[in-house]
Amino acid sequence: MIPPSGSGEFDLIARIRARVRDRGDVVVGIGDDAAVLQPPAGQQLAITTDTLNVGVHFFAETRARDLGWKALAVNLSDLAAMGAEPAWCTLSLSLPESDPAWLDEFIEGFLDLAGEQRIALVGGDTTRGPLSIAVTAIGCVDAGRALRRAGACLEDDVWVSGTLGDAAAALAPWPTPRDALRRRLERPQPRVALGRQLVGLAHAAADVSDGLLADLGHICRASGMGAEIWLPSLPASETLLALEANDRVAWQASGGDDYELCFTAASSQRDAIARLAKELDLPLTRIGRIVAGNEVVALDALGRPWRGERNGYAHF
Amino acid sequence: MIPPSGSGEFDLIARIRARVRDRGDVVVGIGDDAAVLQPPAGQQLAITTDTLNVGVHFFAETRARDLGWKALAVNLSDLAAMGAEPAWCTLSLSLPESDPAWLDEFIEGFLDLAGEQRIALVGGDTTRGPLSIAVTAIGCVDAGRALRRAGACLEDDVWVSGTLGDAAAALAPWPTPRDALRRRLERPQPRVALGRQLVGLAHAAADVSDGLLADLGHICRASGMGAEIWLPSLPASETLLALEANDRVAWQASGGDDYELCFTAASSQRDAIARLAKELDLPLTRIGRIVAGNEVVALDALGRPWRGERNGYAHF
Repeated sequence: MIPPSGSGEFDLIARIRARVRDRGDVVVGIGDDAAVLQPPAGQQLAITTDTLNVGVHFFAETRARDLGWKALAVNLSDLAAMGAEPAWCTLSLSLPESDPAWLDEFIEGFLDLAGEQRIALVGGDTTRGPLSIAVTAIGCVDAGRALRRAGACLEDDVWVSGTLGDAAAALAPWPTPRDALRRRLERPQPRVALGRQLVGLAHAAADVSDGLLADLGHICRASGMGAEIWLPSLPASETLLALEANDRVAWQASGGDDYELCFTAASSQRDAIARLAKELDLPLTRIGRIVAGNEVVALDALGRPWRGERNGYAHF
Repeated sequence: MIPPSGSGEFDLIARIRARVRDRGDVVVGIGDDAAVLQPPAGQQLAITTDTLNVGVHFFAETRARDLGWKALAVNLSDLAAMGAEPAWCTLSLSLPESDPAWLDEFIEGFLDLAGEQRIALVGGDTTRGPLSIAVTAIGCVDAGRALRRAGACLEDDVWVSGTLGDAAAALAPWPTPRDALRRRLERPQPRVALGRQLVGLAHAAADVSDGLLADLGHICRASGMGAEIWLPSLPASETLLALEANDRVAWQASGGDDYELCFTAASSQRDAIARLAKELDLPLTRIGRIVAGNEVVALDALGRPWRGERNGYAHF
């Protein structure tokens, strides 16, 4: 790992090392065969890996700084869904050629978010190849307290954070300005603080990466439950509402890349969740409920089942 | 991470899950937003990431089973160099298309080695893209006892495990049979048991991935020392010796991909190291010594400095 040879890779690594801030629990950081970490007593580790490939997960023209941010954000979103506190990460970066200016921007974006979330970059590697970014992130959570997909109970409320559909709308061929939408697509804000507060409050959680209905489907499948979702209740940003687009509901229900948290909780928690929304200054919207069965049914304003596309992002 | 949607990815993941053996310390395995792990009390974690890209680190025609093995092996080699016991790993796999037969073979190879080394595959993702494999491996080591590159002392012996040069020779354009050499290139055996036994015995260690002189250079740089290496002492396999090739010494001294361990130890440890070699049934060869300065000098049979290519594998 990260062999500082006399090669060009050494320069890349030196550039990265120079910008990484340390945590006290990083015993050995970048520059040995492996990093050495001191896990906190009484805690368990949540670990996730997500890869972004050019032409698949992002456009070749995406700004390096946004890409650096997003590569880490999508992993932190997974940690958030587990209720874990981010601790350490590694970065595997494949680049077609050594491009110091691009790399500086990329690392800036990555470390902007890493600094905000106090996660230490402890290692990784850089290799030649088509542009691809694989990040592994590790967080800590009190033993036995991680949020799971399994755990949704009959009659639980279904909640979602923030707003849905902006990222999907950003990909639509709009002639109109869509900077606010693009920002959601390119600079998702992982709901780490929310996830940590949901420990002990939510019964089940998942992040909305593939699309609300798909991700809620994961919760239902893992919990052996069904769900009913009220489409008119799905939260939308003001920008999205202003578009008056026919596809709005589809973007909200099935668009990927929102990186909000979808969670279920007992109805007795409604007041606590309202307080949490205020405390975090983040909308938390009740959008449905857990029912018996194994299906996620989305209902329109007249209570009719919705027939739109709902499979979410297909990885293959 | 690993979203089991209704897509093709779900099938891939199901195939992987079906073949993974669990460890007791895996609280949540594949199939949630993140895996949850129970780190052992009193231990620290060693973590490493290495990526293999088609056309850069391996030929497109490499057998899937060998590739699966090697993708894990190169990471376990890093853990071995830290003296860590392998515990958990994640796998990010980019594939140009869904190919169940190829994937089965790949996973077989990966899990062959994972089973042998008792490391649990706890998560990852599969994405579309040019063939690329990023593995993150985590191991455990007693707190404060990890082997480092830094730590080599003046007058330490320099040792290397196994034999050197086979992998580099396998890449040479031989008309002759070279199955034994290819096997070293394609199925490297990470020296995990050796690494664990070197804790408390070696002063410094690194794995030989970039080439002996380059990797020993990492040890010297981290330790603020120099080294003298005796080229005639470098261990070679019988296959390599039988080739009578002019490039043999260059392959041994500078060829990458051997995944042996290079380590330094006080001369008082020679008997202990000889016993260890016998116990592990693995040659451990004394090939030089740590000297003052900051250079790695390779000496030929007449004690003259060697002028061959020595920079090791250049990642860019």
